[in-house]
Amino acid sequence: MDPEIAEKYASWCRSIVVEASAPSPLLAKACEELVGGIGSMLGRMPLAGGTADHGRCVLLCAGNSSKLHGVVEAAELEALGEEGYVLRTAGEPGRPFVAIAGHTDRGALYGAFHFLRLLQTGQNLNELNIIEKPAAKLRMINHWDNMDGSVERGYAGRSIFYRDGKIVTDRKRIHDYARMMAAVGLNAIAINNVNVHETETNLITSELLPSVAAVADIFRAYGVRLYLSVNFASPIQYGGLTTADPLDPEVRRFWAERAADVYRHIPDFGGFLVKADSEFRPGPFTYGRDHADGANMLAEALRPYGGIVVWRCFVYDCLQDWRDRKTDRARAAFDHFRPLDGKFADNVILQIKNGPMDFQVREPASPLFGGLRHTNQVLELQITQEYTGQQKHLCFLIPQWKEILDFDTYARGEGSTVSKAATGELFGRPLGGIAAVSNIGDDANWTGHLLAQANYYGYGRLVWRPELTAEQIADEWTRITFGHDPAVVSTIRRMLLDSWTIYENYTSPLGVGWMVNPGHHYGPNVDGYEYSKWGTYHYADCHGIGVDRTVKSGTGYTGQYHDKVASRFESIESCPDELLLFFHHVPYTHVLKSGKTVIQHIYDTHFEGAEQVDKLVDVWRGLEGRIDGDRYASVLSRLQEQSKHAKEWRDVINSYFLRKSGIADEQGRTIY
Amino acid sequence: MDPEIAEKYASWCRSIVVEASAPSPLLAKACEELVGGIGSMLGRMPLAGGTADHGRCVLLCAGNSSKLHGVVEAAELEALGEEGYVLRTAGEPGRPFVAIAGHTDRGALYGAFHFLRLLQTGQNLNELNIIEKPAAKLRMINHWDNMDGSVERGYAGRSIFYRDGKIVTDRKRIHDYARMMAAVGLNAIAINNVNVHETETNLITSELLPSVAAVADIFRAYGVRLYLSVNFASPIQYGGLTTADPLDPEVRRFWAERAADVYRHIPDFGGFLVKADSEFRPGPFTYGRDHADGANMLAEALRPYGGIVVWRCFVYDCLQDWRDRKTDRARAAFDHFRPLDGKFADNVILQIKNGPMDFQVREPASPLFGGLRHTNQVLELQITQEYTGQQKHLCFLIPQWKEILDFDTYARGEGSTVSKAATGELFGRPLGGIAAVSNIGDDANWTGHLLAQANYYGYGRLVWRPELTAEQIADEWTRITFGHDPAVVSTIRRMLLDSWTIYENYTSPLGVGWMVNPGHHYGPNVDGYEYSKWGTYHYADCHGIGVDRTVKSGTGYTGQYHDKVASRFESIESCPDELLLFFHHVPYTHVLKSGKTVIQHIYDTHFEGAEQVDKLVDVWRGLEGRIDGDRYASVLSRLQEQSKHAKEWRDVINSYFLRKSGIADEQGRTIY
Repeated sequence: MDPEIAEKYASWCRSIVVEASAPSPLLAKACEELVGGIGSMLGRMPLAGGTADHGRCVLLCAGNSSKLHGVVEAAELEALGEEGYVLRTAGEPGRPFVAIAGHTDRGALYGAFHFLRLLQTGQNLNELNIIEKPAAKLRMINHWDNMDGSVERGYAGRSIFYRDGKIVTDRKRIHDYARMMAAVGLNAIAINNVNVHETETNLITSELLPSVAAVADIFRAYGVRLYLSVNFASPIQYGGLTTADPLDPEVRRFWAERAADVYRHIPDFGGFLVKADSEFRPGPFTYGRDHADGANMLAEALRPYGGIVVWRCFVYDCLQDWRDRKTDRARAAFDHFRPLDGKFADNVILQIKNGPMDFQVREPASPLFGGLRHTNQVLELQITQEYTGQQKHLCFLIPQWKEILDFDTYARGEGSTVSKAATGELFGRPLGGIAAVSNIGDDANWTGHLLAQANYYGYGRLVWRPELTAEQIADEWTRITFGHDPAVVSTIRRMLLDSWTIYENYTSPLGVGWMVNPGHHYGPNVDGYEYSKWGTYHYADCHGIGVDRTVKSGTGYTGQYHDKVASRFESIESCPDELLLFFHHVPYTHVLKSGKTVIQHIYDTHFEGAEQVDKLVDVWRGLEGRIDGDRYASVLSRLQEQSKHAKEWRDVINSYFLRKSGIADEQGRTIY
Repeated sequence: MDPEIAEKYASWCRSIVVEASAPSPLLAKACEELVGGIGSMLGRMPLAGGTADHGRCVLLCAGNSSKLHGVVEAAELEALGEEGYVLRTAGEPGRPFVAIAGHTDRGALYGAFHFLRLLQTGQNLNELNIIEKPAAKLRMINHWDNMDGSVERGYAGRSIFYRDGKIVTDRKRIHDYARMMAAVGLNAIAINNVNVHETETNLITSELLPSVAAVADIFRAYGVRLYLSVNFASPIQYGGLTTADPLDPEVRRFWAERAADVYRHIPDFGGFLVKADSEFRPGPFTYGRDHADGANMLAEALRPYGGIVVWRCFVYDCLQDWRDRKTDRARAAFDHFRPLDGKFADNVILQIKNGPMDFQVREPASPLFGGLRHTNQVLELQITQEYTGQQKHLCFLIPQWKEILDFDTYARGEGSTVSKAATGELFGRPLGGIAAVSNIGDDANWTGHLLAQANYYGYGRLVWRPELTAEQIADEWTRITFGHDPAVVSTIRRMLLDSWTIYENYTSPLGVGWMVNPGHHYGPNVDGYEYSKWGTYHYADCHGIGVDRTVKSGTGYTGQYHDKVASRFESIESCPDELLLFFHHVPYTHVLKSGKTVIQHIYDTHFEGAEQVDKLVDVWRGLEGRIDGDRYASVLSRLQEQSKHAKEWRDVINSYFLRKSGIADEQGRTIY
């Protein structure tokens, strides 16, 4: 940190005064974080526990306090709700202070982390007046961790939670992680994979609950509630019943008992996350029941304790016949859940993936946003880069998420964004929020690719405040991580901001998706999913490519959107280029809005994308000596791998389409 | 068995007279098999150990005996060599007998099994005069079994040898298996995977040798010698050395010690089977040595004990760049080993896969046969149906193997067949033979698909006597397995004989190979290996398909054959249709010798193949009630799976080529 700025900060941060109406572990934690954070930034520990009467200080308040008189009004404080805060510079001349005030201790904790971020990003403290409340009530992380220590779709080492079928005993890493979550404003975590295998089914049993509770304690200290993914067939697998029928009284009793047991161990337990009737997971369909029957049954068990059910909408026919062009996986979530709108209990939230397929580099928003009016919703994003380079490739996802959040569903006229639908604002739902699949593991840098940290960080920031721009988030993360060297900041910020477009350039074109190797999903394979049961096709032949999802001549998927959106996607003329092949089957000679033919667009973007990655390597090399050697080398080696692999993508995609279309590249570049 | 025939047999089989110059466990075993086999067939145990003087009997002789005077001459006996035998009806009127005579006890054992086969197939015993010697000296089975109990490319359950990292303690199944091997004339077995993983590396150590020796004992009782696959890097992994360089004295000492230890436990140990410098296995290349250096080093260690080294030629670049059309995996084995011809020790045998690629449904014979003049060779076949339906599909492989064995290399003019090259006859080599990868596991019926037993059986029979026809083998196996109901015999025989052609019809066309799902190799995936590192391409584009392997314009692979063969493959006109795409890249409109275009051939064979499988199901249904219900149902369910899966093959292949070529099926059938 610049010594001059450090000196200024030090003058503010000599002491921390804590005010609360009652003793609070969260507030103590907030104070501890301020002391530790300031101490490590400025090299000088502030004094904690003094009073505000001896010169400049930081005042940390939870709830009203006499010290806030004339600084934050009671009504203003109350309006902050359960998680908001005010950061305000106040005090008499000569004895100014910075107030970090929440209506609750949780708000004060988030305020403390915000204050630290101000220091990290070099902000002026003289005239602070920040009032913040999170946009989303539920700000959740889903861990797809298995108890054998593996992480489904994990690219950053092994699980920090489990090893060899047990919860780890050395929980230092979990503690650090809980801090990290709170620092970016997240408040909920499901600690096991939505694909609940045999061992994990037992997490809700008396045998394992004590160690789950120990983990919950760690997260509670940072204001994060713990959730568990549950196996819908638990009554059979663990309970010894012959059925898991949600309407069966024995099954209901089973779940009621489990809920009671869970809450005995974890009084503030968040609830259950459920993947049911999806990709071979058990669910209510087996018993001729619907998803509302299944979710409401679990909700009933959790209701006495204030718990909720997060029920995933990722339900589709995964034994589809590729010959059948009428069935459309994109339709599935809407077709399954739209008819149930209004039938779910108030403590059920439907978790809806951002797009209708599965976390592809480009998809339209799911039509369930704006399609469900009487049902709580949570938007599901994927931080872990399953289809976006698996943390070997740089792909900063905030711009993608921004597009999703800002997508206008027109459900209640213009401005009915996905963001408003997910938070519950659009239809005044009591619950709502955003969830995302974690990208962290036990790698030293958490995320494998160091720059992939920006996705986790950015997720938290965006969920708190969706109006933040991708630029702001990239800038913040870069400064916090690498400091304020302008060359470093501008280079890394630019790399992050360009990376999604670059990745899209050299992978599957124009919204068509997939074209990856089946199973592990890394690397190009144009026909990898073409003749499969997964409902993921591009229908390329020697004439053209794309999926006709129109009402007029295709699967009718466009009809799931509200009129204004539907008609935009329905017509080739108004459908945006970047989603053209998602919605339409067109000849390779079709001319895009860019003026290029589809085939030339494919060639051009793929040559360009691979070149862009080479440039990423070059600009990163320009930072040598400006950042520490370890981090420099680690990122460089990832970028070099990306550069090699981008060429593989380029060549496979281009060769596939040259061979298939027989149309030469206008520029005569080498295609194999 | 027909009661009339049984009565006739019974008259011959009242007693078994055993004659040997010295006590012999093998001869005792032969007698035991005769007693047990005859007893179970006729329901009446023969008396063993009598003399030939009391009426009809079976005379079992190892070596000369006074009882053979005037029946088998001493010179004739000697000419049988180590494994041959005579079956001859002889004796005075009223006191006739059947002599089963070998020059050795091993020959007598094989003769005894032959005699039992005569009974099983209902042959007349009155005028027997059979003289047999095996064509191949080494008649080997390779097990790709791992000590965790898995079997690489196994489709019939788990390993019969291993479980949980150990050799099984209940060895009943191994005992049965040793009998089975001897019954079909096999004399060598390698009991662990050529991909030698960590645990299996220790099979040659004092820790594990006692239990390996116990397994060797079981096989020895049936005349089968045991071999082990070894890890070339053992000196490092087990021996604590820093190198496995074959010229390093410490390394040589390591292997000499291991050999001594192995022979201490197993005095008749066969030798080492080695996969080196192949598919990421370690080998001499690491140390700048060649395969002769590596193999000869091991041969030196084994020589004092009469052991041999079986060294695989399956060596190729498995990190190939698919963009590079000059490198040709088909060339690899020849390019690696031809220059080393004559450099291998006398107790080294090179194991050469039948074709230049990897056990595809159709390949030309490897040019190493006839290409190596001064080197011992063994032909490697694959009984396990890795690429031929994985024992879910019916594919009787004897016709394929017959084509390979009969392939004329012209190395020493016409008649220089692969069979003669492999046995060593062609160039007068001291060692030679045939090896094959087992298709058995711990499934109750050994092979998963019951009818896949015919491949194992047929392998043994063919290796003993390559001039047997596929028809004879199919007939024999069917009668032995299902009895003599003419409807049953003719149906199953026909099914077996047609099955390879049927399988070829609906899978990859015209010798091009691959087009399977990567990794597990089951099911269609036309581009599955097209953009991979494995050297396995078809180069299909919208105009045509095939690999140009000619000298004139391609990879030059055809030049590895002797002139007569080379020129046949080099020219599109003389290249056989079924290998056209293996050797040539042609337009879809190229007209085959059949008069059809390539594209129409693809469509026609795929429609036909799928229909043929439906007919297999139908004719099998016609056997209901004629064979026992369990076996009927088991085969039916496999055939039904095949029928479904053949349609998947048909539709994927046809759709791929319709989409790619844009050329419609002349018959307007449904293609997707």
